[in-house]
Amino acid sequence: MPHPPDQLLLQLLAIFASAKVVGELFERIKLPSVLGEILAGAALGPFALGWTVPSDTIHSVAEIGAIFVLFSAGLETSPQDLIRVGRKALLVAVAGIVVPFVLGFGYMKWRGDASNEAIFVGAAMVATSVGITARVLGDLRVLATRTAKIILGAAVFDDILGMVLLAVVAGLASSGGLERLRLGVLIVEAAAFALFMIFVAPRIVRRIQPGMDRLSTQHAPLIVALVLCLFLSWLSANIGMAAIIGPFFSGLMFADYAPRWNLLPRVGGITEFLAPFFFFSIGSRLNVRLFAGDVLFAAIVISLLAIGSKVLGCGLPLWREGWLSGLQVGVGMMPRGEVALIVALVGLQSQIVLPSTYAIVVFMTAITTILAPPLLRYLFRGAMKAV
Amino acid sequence: MPHPPDQLLLQLLAIFASAKVVGELFERIKLPSVLGEILAGAALGPFALGWTVPSDTIHSVAEIGAIFVLFSAGLETSPQDLIRVGRKALLVAVAGIVVPFVLGFGYMKWRGDASNEAIFVGAAMVATSVGITARVLGDLRVLATRTAKIILGAAVFDDILGMVLLAVVAGLASSGGLERLRLGVLIVEAAAFALFMIFVAPRIVRRIQPGMDRLSTQHAPLIVALVLCLFLSWLSANIGMAAIIGPFFSGLMFADYAPRWNLLPRVGGITEFLAPFFFFSIGSRLNVRLFAGDVLFAAIVISLLAIGSKVLGCGLPLWREGWLSGLQVGVGMMPRGEVALIVALVGLQSQIVLPSTYAIVVFMTAITTILAPPLLRYLFRGAMKAV
Repeated sequence: MPHPPDQLLLQLLAIFASAKVVGELFERIKLPSVLGEILAGAALGPFALGWTVPSDTIHSVAEIGAIFVLFSAGLETSPQDLIRVGRKALLVAVAGIVVPFVLGFGYMKWRGDASNEAIFVGAAMVATSVGITARVLGDLRVLATRTAKIILGAAVFDDILGMVLLAVVAGLASSGGLERLRLGVLIVEAAAFALFMIFVAPRIVRRIQPGMDRLSTQHAPLIVALVLCLFLSWLSANIGMAAIIGPFFSGLMFADYAPRWNLLPRVGGITEFLAPFFFFSIGSRLNVRLFAGDVLFAAIVISLLAIGSKVLGCGLPLWREGWLSGLQVGVGMMPRGEVALIVALVGLQSQIVLPSTYAIVVFMTAITTILAPPLLRYLFRGAMKAV
Repeated sequence: MPHPPDQLLLQLLAIFASAKVVGELFERIKLPSVLGEILAGAALGPFALGWTVPSDTIHSVAEIGAIFVLFSAGLETSPQDLIRVGRKALLVAVAGIVVPFVLGFGYMKWRGDASNEAIFVGAAMVATSVGITARVLGDLRVLATRTAKIILGAAVFDDILGMVLLAVVAGLASSGGLERLRLGVLIVEAAAFALFMIFVAPRIVRRIQPGMDRLSTQHAPLIVALVLCLFLSWLSANIGMAAIIGPFFSGLMFADYAPRWNLLPRVGGITEFLAPFFFFSIGSRLNVRLFAGDVLFAAIVISLLAIGSKVLGCGLPLWREGWLSGLQVGVGMMPRGEVALIVALVGLQSQIVLPSTYAIVVFMTAITTILAPPLLRYLFRGAMKAV
């Protein structure tokens, strides 16, 4: 008796299980499991086999999943550490943003694409995935090296700056075009929001902490954090930024108290359950048939630019410390992740970019993420022996 | 710019925050927070203020929430403990099922209701809420007493037997009427499923445990447990039982390994986030205007019968140990919870029972849950002094 609730259960089961199985297979061949989850969506989704066509409800669950992916990322990013890592990481981050954006934007414009498409591709090329980089460096046991610390610090700054850029891009998406005044307002708004959440919000958490311990509802801090996460998500969507910016910064805000309130395993559990729906949904929107001729060529060029621009931009500030350090940092900053995918998704959903542009960004994300781990393993082989 | 995604975010925020705030207020006046969450749904929902009318997506999220409420309950119920508590608890449980069911069914039939309505009300009167009982006894610090142990053991048996009864009731709902043969098949099916999950499934988990530790995906045991939970949920819905029966038993199956694999905080986090949507949704379907004349009278009678029948049925097997023990156990078994609400919801959704019958069950659940804590506090005052 296949009535609606059973359909929902069947989709939940099929998507969660297939994403996790392909993810596990990817881990076995030393590739990030996230790519496996995206591939499961692309293969089983409407553009390929068509076995599992996510319903609107699943896309909504995926959207909630994206909120928790970013909330978790924020929770694992201590604002204190960030302020401490200092100038070098910020320098690497800024150079690693400007070069990819300019090259990506430039190539798309030169190819004859509209400004909006070019801006989205440029923005998607900006954000380094902290999660994947940290995972690879951790697996190599080189997290204690100076270059690893610079990479992680810069990757976090990149995610934050990418987030600010996403706010601008999402603002463009909702206003529907490039208006100088609106653009200026958005940049100021996004920057003010980011600065407030990094410097002021954690102090507010410290202030309300004694009161939290007095609340009688079980799990009070978790609940307050969840309410704030949902509120900031709604707020950031409503003032014209992307809905995932709020969750990232609300995670950041609670990061210093996450161990004390045991937030990580519990929010991690939510993310573990919901994230596969997000990545599957990302894959299911990818029309693999588009990868031919022109689009495939553009996707390869954009991928090469994404690699070259990060190695160049991020490596340059470290060139004086030797070409190896420069290369290590540049390659470490290479993998793009959630933020790039969300930039592309925002563009696709608001019908500002074409399905082919979405495909180019997903391709670029996959290539940079696949190539980084083996390259890093090669570049850090000296440091690994030394440890 | 209120486009669909913002609507979803706004509903998520409004429902989660309002449910948690009213829940916290209820805790302050020593009432179970679950009732506060239901009240928030009833007050803000379409039948009262109409401020937050849950969309289909929210109802789907609520359905996933119900799955996790039962999955968590199962995870906290060790099958080993259950087998050990033994005959006395089982005797209390069976008496505590037969008496309420007969009285509830009898009154509804006498009142002139259809057999289906009478069966649903009877089934909803059966299941004691383990969660609420354990919470109250824990707050009173009398969990170590013999009567408390009998209450908890019997409450768990009651939930399992209630679950079997729910399977039968849900089977009725999908086949649309009382057929003797179908009924017999369902009872055998449900009993076989329950026995398999209590006695065989935990051994399977023990067998696969070494293999689990070898899987390279992070959090492998959590993922396997989630996949099984979704699979058994789909399976139990598809063989004609309710979708929440699978999650409860899959929790039970992993209960003995839950501490080793750190499942409780992580599944608990998911439940903490999703459960409020379930309880809010329960409340939002409650038409408070129905509580007048006939229906109000029936709701009060059913509540009195629900109280009396549990005190009588559960107290009787213990009468020889003194009237106090009998009363303590009877009152301890009084509060109904999630299972009663789900029975009612299954009936309402499949349009087998009238909105007024749904209202009667929710009323009965609320009354029994409100009255149990103060009565228990009074009856255990001696034991509390002794501790």
